[in-house]
Amino acid sequence: MRSDGRRADQARPVRITTGYNKHAEGSVLIEVGDTKVICTATVEERVPPFMKGQGRGWVTAEYSMLPRATTVRNQRESAKGKLGGRTMEIQRLIGRSLRSVVNLEALGERSITLDCDVIQADGGTRTTSITGAFVAMAIAIDKISREKNLSRFPINDFLGSLSVGIIQGAACLDLNYEEDSKAKVDMNVVMTGQGKFVEVQGTGEEAPFSRQELDELLALAEAGIQAMIAEQQQALGPIADRIRGNSHAASRS
Amino acid sequence: MRSDGRRADQARPVRITTGYNKHAEGSVLIEVGDTKVICTATVEERVPPFMKGQGRGWVTAEYSMLPRATTVRNQRESAKGKLGGRTMEIQRLIGRSLRSVVNLEALGERSITLDCDVIQADGGTRTTSITGAFVAMAIAIDKISREKNLSRFPINDFLGSLSVGIIQGAACLDLNYEEDSKAKVDMNVVMTGQGKFVEVQGTGEEAPFSRQELDELLALAEAGIQAMIAEQQQALGPIADRIRGNSHAASRS
Amino acid sequence: MRSDGRRADQARPVRITTGYNKHAEGSVLIEVGDTKVICTATVEERVPPFMKGQGRGWVTAEYSMLPRATTVRNQRESAKGKLGGRTMEIQRLIGRSLRSVVNLEALGERSITLDCDVIQADGGTRTTSITGAFVAMAIAIDKISREKNLSRFPINDFLGSLSVGIIQGAACLDLNYEEDSKAKVDMNVVMTGQGKFVEVQGTGEEAPFSRQELDELLALAEAGIQAMIAEQQQALGPIADRIRGNSHAASRS
Amino acid sequence: MRSDGRRADQARPVRITTGYNKHAEGSVLIEVGDTKVICTATVEERVPPFMKGQGRGWVTAEYSMLPRATTVRNQRESAKGKLGGRTMEIQRLIGRSLRSVVNLEALGERSITLDCDVIQADGGTRTTSITGAFVAMAIAIDKISREKNLSRFPINDFLGSLSVGIIQGAACLDLNYEEDSKAKVDMNVVMTGQGKFVEVQGTGEEAPFSRQELDELLALAEAGIQAMIAEQQQALGPIADRIRGNSHAASRS
Amino acid sequence: MRSDGRRADQARPVRITTGYNKHAEGSVLIEVGDTKVICTATVEERVPPFMKGQGRGWVTAEYSMLPRATTVRNQRESAKGKLGGRTMEIQRLIGRSLRSVVNLEALGERSITLDCDVIQADGGTRTTSITGAFVAMAIAIDKISREKNLSRFPINDFLGSLSVGIIQGAACLDLNYEEDSKAKVDMNVVMTGQGKFVEVQGTGEEAPFSRQELDELLALAEAGIQAMIAEQQQALGPIADRIRGNSHAASRS
Amino acid sequence: MRSDGRRADQARPVRITTGYNKHAEGSVLIEVGDTKVICTATVEERVPPFMKGQGRGWVTAEYSMLPRATTVRNQRESAKGKLGGRTMEIQRLIGRSLRSVVNLEALGERSITLDCDVIQADGGTRTTSITGAFVAMAIAIDKISREKNLSRFPINDFLGSLSVGIIQGAACLDLNYEEDSKAKVDMNVVMTGQGKFVEVQGTGEEAPFSRQELDELLALAEAGIQAMIAEQQQALGPIADRIRGNSHAASRS
Repeated sequence: MRSDGRRADQARPVRITTGYNKHAEGSVLIEVGDTKVICTATVEERVPPFMKGQGRGWVTAEYSMLPRATTVRNQRESAKGKLGGRTMEIQRLIGRSLRSVVNLEALGERSITLDCDVIQADGGTRTTSITGAFVAMAIAIDKISREKNLSRFPINDFLGSLSVGIIQGAACLDLNYEEDSKAKVDMNVVMTGQGKFVEVQGTGEEAPFSRQELDELLALAEAGIQAMIAEQQQALGPIADRIRGNSHAASRS
Repeated sequence: MRSDGRRADQARPVRITTGYNKHAEGSVLIEVGDTKVICTATVEERVPPFMKGQGRGWVTAEYSMLPRATTVRNQRESAKGKLGGRTMEIQRLIGRSLRSVVNLEALGERSITLDCDVIQADGGTRTTSITGAFVAMAIAIDKISREKNLSRFPINDFLGSLSVGIIQGAACLDLNYEEDSKAKVDMNVVMTGQGKFVEVQGTGEEAPFSRQELDELLALAEAGIQAMIAEQQQALGPIADRIRGNSHAASRS
Repeated sequence: MRSDGRRADQARPVRITTGYNKHAEGSVLIEVGDTKVICTATVEERVPPFMKGQGRGWVTAEYSMLPRATTVRNQRESAKGKLGGRTMEIQRLIGRSLRSVVNLEALGERSITLDCDVIQADGGTRTTSITGAFVAMAIAIDKISREKNLSRFPINDFLGSLSVGIIQGAACLDLNYEEDSKAKVDMNVVMTGQGKFVEVQGTGEEAPFSRQELDELLALAEAGIQAMIAEQQQALGPIADRIRGNSHAASRS
Repeated sequence: MRSDGRRADQARPVRITTGYNKHAEGSVLIEVGDTKVICTATVEERVPPFMKGQGRGWVTAEYSMLPRATTVRNQRESAKGKLGGRTMEIQRLIGRSLRSVVNLEALGERSITLDCDVIQADGGTRTTSITGAFVAMAIAIDKISREKNLSRFPINDFLGSLSVGIIQGAACLDLNYEEDSKAKVDMNVVMTGQGKFVEVQGTGEEAPFSRQELDELLALAEAGIQAMIAEQQQALGPIADRIRGNSHAASRS
Repeated sequence: MRSDGRRADQARPVRITTGYNKHAEGSVLIEVGDTKVICTATVEERVPPFMKGQGRGWVTAEYSMLPRATTVRNQRESAKGKLGGRTMEIQRLIGRSLRSVVNLEALGERSITLDCDVIQADGGTRTTSITGAFVAMAIAIDKISREKNLSRFPINDFLGSLSVGIIQGAACLDLNYEEDSKAKVDMNVVMTGQGKFVEVQGTGEEAPFSRQELDELLALAEAGIQAMIAEQQQALGPIADRIRGNSHAASRS
Repeated sequence: MRSDGRRADQARPVRITTGYNKHAEGSVLIEVGDTKVICTATVEERVPPFMKGQGRGWVTAEYSMLPRATTVRNQRESAKGKLGGRTMEIQRLIGRSLRSVVNLEALGERSITLDCDVIQADGGTRTTSITGAFVAMAIAIDKISREKNLSRFPINDFLGSLSVGIIQGAACLDLNYEEDSKAKVDMNVVMTGQGKFVEVQGTGEEAPFSRQELDELLALAEAGIQAMIAEQQQALGPIADRIRGNSHAASRS
């Protein structure tokens, strides 16, 4: 039994509120336990200079925490004058993960920026950001798709993410902050609705891990992420059907 | 009649939700119309180097907008590597205003940082931040006051703020974004519960204004801010009484 | 009686030396008591990107202090690698104030940058900068006006500025550094030759101020600024007449 | 057959030259094919502020490429004024990996900085850096261990790293630059001499990957890394025996 | 004959105004032709961290140009966020030159910062800064020497500087801006009152120069600098005698 | 006799390895005693904005040291976020020196960047960089010259550099680090194959130097640099003949 009473294979409750911001093309407030992230999607009708004229779109992400999202206040990166390594690593991860399920040719020469701002942190902020950003992105792409009459819906599959780790010898799903700081091994997994891996990032800084442990962690993550994707589908309603259409077509081919 | 149907002397609806963040010593979500700001108060048992050993406390503020708080996405200041002039001006204003009603000696050698993060903007973000930050600060100071058994409650009076401006020749209260961008004169006013001015910042970049216009604007602000302060008092409940005690004592002396 | 022997309503002696720099299109050394500021106006035949193609000009300002302008040496902002909040606030104020009296359409698609470099500081550096920068700007605009045969002289009115404050209960005009650091209330006022307000920035960080106190301060400022404007007129000679022409026309209409 | 004639499970030739720098406490030039990295270890008798007084040491890493290490010249990060996200991500990875095999208590309150400077790049610069940095670190720690008479040799196990990826459907070991840019899936693996995982970072930005593909990649990496570790042992000579002693003791317990 | 009518061996008129700043421990306005530099000396009773506890003082310099010191306005380095290479090179040169004639032991553990701010530039700003900064420094050191009762006056000799260059085949003294931009060879020389070299910096970017040309330039500089030093002596009055005392003593020994 | 057994007029052994980098258009590893510098030349078919459309080329240089090139580890300038004054001064010197022997018209509208990265330092890193960068540049220019069929070979003469200094009263050639830190006078000289000066930078921070001392130092440098140029000629092989052709033609005219 874990400190908050969960079973080893049990994730925290998830809540996804769409339409959280009146200006953004897509937005959600996602809550996974006490971790709360606002994800907004901004569509711009241009791509970065290095991609111009290729007829393809681009998806990128930015990640930040409010100073008091954490138990101790963190100095703002805007005040420090630079982004920390952790921030850069996370926003590269989010952008890369989202691009893996987007058909950039079908999107056309436009870009989508996902802003993931953590307003309260309790472990798993990067995986929560990926899961929430996917929903905000899908809403924004649905809007473009209808407004611009895109011939093909540009999202190939769903995308969810959760952390897993080894605590006192036991593989556990969806670590909260207290668990995360005690874990010997820590792994973030990003998967598609079809059950394929997009990112597997396992770290054994405190203690190297065996192949068998790795296998257990991956199995836990797999089940947990499919449940997260079910939440996304519910939040997306009819938009989920458009993604399902692409995803099934792909799996049949 | 204004574009959103308000009378010239009518402010937008206000909602103050306390305890919005589980980590901070004091926190609120304040909504003034569609402007939404998360204000958190962080208490630290130390003061900046230049104040050490004086037996006095310090109150400071930081202000930021999420990139998509606005209709068009703004680049993060952390990505630009520096704070803009507007941000610095606003956070200096918030900090200065809050200090005007705090008894820094009674607070003792500790500091309070108010983080004001705008999650959705529709005009009046700086005045909304001041009004919300006051409530978050009062909650945090009440906590310290009880935990540290302070002999005197360190807040002297309430503090509220609103904008006023001249639109098509008419003085109006609490401008929204659309009104703000059309206003010929724009003024931010910060006042205490006792009706004294803490800040008066009037700007006639588009057109200089007369003494009579200034008088009208100040009168509008005065009435509007007292209504904001009534909202603060309701949100603060019994903490409001502790402030009232100090404020009445001061006005009798 | 004030520490330097002045009456409460008495400003310090003003000296404006035009043509102080052989390269600039307009330049002055302005001295208000021991506060000395070099103001230069640079004309460039282009506007910032966000204003291109609108047929309107732009006026902007930069402000800086030499490191030893003050009693204690200040580190250069160039060495720190960023501008401080105070600097940004002041240069935004100067630019905004100057633009309020310039007809940007009549100026045409060109920009004027006012550099205000404080070589010795003794209080009132921002108000002195505004007063001096107006003169440098007028000289530069007169030069353009003649060289480019502008059909309308692009300055609508004079513009002067002074500080006022409350020291030991008394409203005083044009505070020097020593007075400024003791003042309970501090206000900077910018006014036109026609007696209208362009900026009113009053701050009661040390003690909130009443409506009556505000009225007294504004009255003091009004008289003092008109005397500053008389100095500007003398320094500008025939250029002053061109401004007067516009200003009178406006007031008659 | 691969473009350079290697089999899918064949790594490029490795050469490790120790003592490459006369100033550093430990140094190597490591060459893996045409990828060449200078790794130096610097010992300092102090730890970062956040670790003071805990009696434990610290190991950290920095990574950089000479501007013309690559086919096209890259701008220096020193000229840009900030480290890029890729650099930060890599140096965090190197430091974390090295720490996983160091007994920080046995090292004592001192720090070791590993500088990995890529002088020529042809794919796999981060894995080559880890493999080379381990050798430089071992030499430096051996030096400390003898000079300071440490009671226990502070390295628990060997540490090697290689990349694996899927190219045209086939899992391949140790990708060069040309292969890396064509790979659909790219994975960096860091392992100990005992065959445990320290880092597994797999990315399927171009195409998500199945569990079976993941298993194949891990198997390839495992064999390849043990061969890299054999090269380390040869380069380290008698120092390797000291590590083997710890590693065997640990595996028996 | 040169464009401004000077002979090849003729420097521009020099004017040194002492006491130009009421706050600084030493200050001058130095004018060499149309080049005008404000030099202030700031004394602080501490030395940089790397010099602490050695009983020796330190002298350093900073150099800057007002944006419109030049014919075309230059962007402020504070706005760019970093010092340019030219600025750094010049301030290192000024500091190094001044230290060459200061007895840092006799100065005691305190530091002197020379700020050289060019308010109008017409060639030779670095040599003018050195010549002016020497005078400001001497005044400040004289003040310390008397206030702290230093047993030995800490300046060993005078120090002057001028530029020389080859224009249309002829060696010329003290180039103005127009000449400087046409010169094939450009040399800055810093010398002591005793006629020794402190810095010789000759550059033949446009055309390499022969040994004979070098000899001619050095001879011109030598005579010109002694005349500059005579101006310094006049500006310093009785302080010059204290320096002369040290300088003569040194030359006799 | 010097600490490493050399005579006063004896330089350290020189070794120039060409083709050190497989990507660069020209590259060398140059070793002067224990000072080792990798110099690479990058050719780009464009010039900086300020030179566009003039039909002339550009040559520029960047200089850096690996953190542990020195006895004590230096913090990376990329981590500090800015280039130090010493770095900027050196890279300006290298670029200026190289340009003095390049015919920029003959080079055509393209630019060459020389990266000088010190991998081990033992005094004379800037002079070694100039000598090595010249060779890397010559190789790159020879490549362009052949590929683009340039009508004239764009290098006018050879270019070498050495340091000289006064140690314990004696003028010495090519100071190593230990000597450099004890030298009273330190001079860097850059000369052409025809024996003309390109840069003479002498500094007597510790003690001013006489004209006679200057003459001795220049004579030592002259002989030493011609020997360095002989090494360059040997490393360049047939390319040296192309330079010799231009150089002899120039000296005959």
